[in-house]
Amino acid sequence: MRAFFDSRQRRHAPARELHNGGFTDYAETPARAQSILAAIGGAEAPEDRGLGPILAVHDAGYVEFLQTLAERWAAAGRPGDAIGYVWPVVGRRPLRLDRIDALIGRYSFDASTPITADTWTSAYWSAQSALAATHAVLDGDRAAFTLCRPPGHHAGADYYGGYCHLNAAAVAAQAARNAGKAKVAILDIDYHHGNGTQDIFWARGDVFYASLHADPATDYPFYWGHADEVGEGDGRGATLNLPLPQGATLDAFRRAQGRALEAIAAFGAKLLIVSFGADTYIGDPISAFRIETPDYAIFARDIAAAGLPTVIVMEGGYAVDALGANVASFLSGF
Amino acid sequence: MRAFFDSRQRRHAPARELHNGGFTDYAETPARAQSILAAIGGAEAPEDRGLGPILAVHDAGYVEFLQTLAERWAAAGRPGDAIGYVWPVVGRRPLRLDRIDALIGRYSFDASTPITADTWTSAYWSAQSALAATHAVLDGDRAAFTLCRPPGHHAGADYYGGYCHLNAAAVAAQAARNAGKAKVAILDIDYHHGNGTQDIFWARGDVFYASLHADPATDYPFYWGHADEVGEGDGRGATLNLPLPQGATLDAFRRAQGRALEAIAAFGAKLLIVSFGADTYIGDPISAFRIETPDYAIFARDIAAAGLPTVIVMEGGYAVDALGANVASFLSGF
Repeated sequence: MRAFFDSRQRRHAPARELHNGGFTDYAETPARAQSILAAIGGAEAPEDRGLGPILAVHDAGYVEFLQTLAERWAAAGRPGDAIGYVWPVVGRRPLRLDRIDALIGRYSFDASTPITADTWTSAYWSAQSALAATHAVLDGDRAAFTLCRPPGHHAGADYYGGYCHLNAAAVAAQAARNAGKAKVAILDIDYHHGNGTQDIFWARGDVFYASLHADPATDYPFYWGHADEVGEGDGRGATLNLPLPQGATLDAFRRAQGRALEAIAAFGAKLLIVSFGADTYIGDPISAFRIETPDYAIFARDIAAAGLPTVIVMEGGYAVDALGANVASFLSGF
Repeated sequence: MRAFFDSRQRRHAPARELHNGGFTDYAETPARAQSILAAIGGAEAPEDRGLGPILAVHDAGYVEFLQTLAERWAAAGRPGDAIGYVWPVVGRRPLRLDRIDALIGRYSFDASTPITADTWTSAYWSAQSALAATHAVLDGDRAAFTLCRPPGHHAGADYYGGYCHLNAAAVAAQAARNAGKAKVAILDIDYHHGNGTQDIFWARGDVFYASLHADPATDYPFYWGHADEVGEGDGRGATLNLPLPQGATLDAFRRAQGRALEAIAAFGAKLLIVSFGADTYIGDPISAFRIETPDYAIFARDIAAAGLPTVIVMEGGYAVDALGANVASFLSGF
């Protein structure tokens, strides 16, 4: 299976993140990419398909902000990485906002995703890697893998958060739609709900979003991913959320994934994007499922049995030492 | 003029706040109260009017959360003061949330208002002080002062933020309504927009909210206080926002206050609550207006000329050494 990664995706490396009321080391490290590359034997650099496919799912104002944020933060005399401190919880609407802190809150939803001078570059190439894998599949490959680091599924059309800036899975799904795939499905099996992906396709009937994740009552991102969220308008019924309790093991996870795959088959998808997080792993430091390394091959075989051209997009997974083995196990199932 | 303050209002003393991407000393200190008390010659302790008047403007679930937050934070094994890290920016709705971080985000809007084991007690007595001043005025006093520390105007019916937890001005306004005042007005002359007060009375036609404040395009709370916010439903036209540019001096401020007072007179208010912040002061460390100490007496005389029974509620003001003199100057105008 072809795999894609650009070395510029390593550059984004915030010093720390807000956690439990104080600062702690940033969990989404460049070392994650190294662990995966070592286990899968390297990856091809993607070609540069430009901003077009990114702007097909992201707001232009947001993209411009993300490109300039670190520079504006420094110009405002602020030290270190950019972190917001206030958010528009009572309705977001277009506003004239001239202060960097105001813009950060308007374009994000957490205080745990610091922005550095390299964030845009890494996020951009992460999206390009996703596009490369998507085009490999559109050109006939059965499946392709994109090592998206930083990850993407928490990023909405106009917001970042959860270590995510550009939504690689959404960019991939939209590229497949634009290439003529009438219906595209995204299966999100990261430990956390992919709120950004859900929001991007919330009112659309052409992209199905199914997610297995830890119950948002107990796990990030908390305010999205509840079972009653099913999409609206043309998208009503094209969002499926299957929250699982903390402690979930192979059987519960596999059963829920089976339900998601049935719904995707019923939807009539012509291409599948898998948002794959290995933070479901039993040893993950910030998560609480009990999936073991060989289990990933089983999930992958179940997905492969659906018989759809498949783009595998890397999302989370923070047990760095085991991450490569978990990804390799998953890819072995295809 | 009678003044009210309970010594338990001093207890709330967070160690630090998130600011410019790192932690800095908490600006809203107990020393603020000391500066004011020294300048005005002390204050009476309020009687305890219980939770009823607080629950008349605050959500019961929110109040219960605020009462138990510090304890639940400690029970979850978290060190130090409680600080959130993720917020529901894409629509708030009732959700089952079982994790302390999820609840913090659901009931707040910033990362700069840490909660301690004493926060509830101090906020509770701050509200009681406001009620005591309100009843002094309802009982016939021309004006009364309540040293509300912690302050209140950023707190909504179900959220805290901006150093505020319970909205003393809103509690006071509602108490006046319940005592038979048909129409009540709140004049907010703190440097920052009183988003919580605005939200609480947003759809009500019986309480007028007028605010002078730094333009939210450049100043906290950013997402509220824009000139086009005028209320809705029964409250349409009963909210008046007069943002001023940074650098505003006596003349600009006085002119805007004159507009607000005209609107309050046209509304037909029978009682006036003044949310008074001295962070408009030229020496304030976190603000950018250029009001000088003697100016406060001028503003107060203009307000007194409206001839309404008036409750003066303390809000912000962070130049601790000058704070007492600024408050004394303001009160001298009545």
